Amino acid sequence: MPESVVEGFLDAWPVAALLTVTPAGCPHGVPIVFARVGASLFSPVDGKPKARPSLARLRHVAREPRVGLLLERYDADWRRLWWIRVDGRADVLRGDGGGESPAAAAALREKYPQYRDTALFQGEPTLIRVTPERVVGWCASEAALP
Amino acid sequence: MPESVVEGFLDAWPVAALLTVTPAGCPHGVPIVFARVGASLFSPVDGKPKARPSLARLRHVAREPRVGLLLERYDADWRRLWWIRVDGRADVLRGDGGGESPAAAAALREKYPQYRDTALFQGEPTLIRVTPERVVGWCASEAALP
Repeated sequence: MPESVVEGFLDAWPVAALLTVTPAGCPHGVPIVFARVGASLFSPVDGKPKARPSLARLRHVAREPRVGLLLERYDADWRRLWWIRVDGRADVLRGDGGGESPAAAAALREKYPQYRDTALFQGEPTLIRVTPERVVGWCASEAALP
Repeated sequence: MPESVVEGFLDAWPVAALLTVTPAGCPHGVPIVFARVGASLFSPVDGKPKARPSLARLRHVAREPRVGLLLERYDADWRRLWWIRVDGRADVLRGDGGGESPAAAAALREKYPQYRDTALFQGEPTLIRVTPERVVGWCASEAALP
């Protein structure tokens, strides 16, 4: 997949699966929203209802920072299939995140108008920051890409 | 999420992320198609173009059979969000898979009319079988479910 297309999807695609490993060594994944600021991708612990107050993704990342982000497009026309996986390292930013969180929060509000109706944070501002180390992409047909 | 809804999505949803762990202990994921037969979910190594002949997913499963399947629905209307994750064990069926593969192949052809134009298998028939051990689901609003 051309790099310019990958960059465009990392900026604009609305959802990804956050891939983590559990303390028991099992694979785990959950859909997240995210926004890119500079070289990093930021995902908030936001006001969408959560299964539990102590989020598995935060526990996993604290113990094993190597994570993946999988972006994928499914379509009944299989010539339009593509996916991108970002492998990288995650850390958790709380409060103002050493000064980084306000820009991430602004990028999330800009990308998702839904945050006019949904709280951007659930309690103390908390973001997972993913620093990409490798990006791989695949598409069924470059002719079907934007 | 009500169990009947989960069951319906496991039968009909066209795509999932197969979550695995690499030999180095990193999380990994790739979108797959799948069909359910009985209690198991089957995903073919099919004729869609692949990045490499030696597929990472097969190497990972051979070494660490604990896998996940993540089904997710994104929508700009966040009341319509849901996801389902199946945690289970995977193994690889080759050839007729001890007699199991023909039924899986039939289910895949029934679920995906795209296999009229795309080869169901790439070379020797090869399927990943996932035996579920736990299913978790989340939805933003039960009222928005089918």
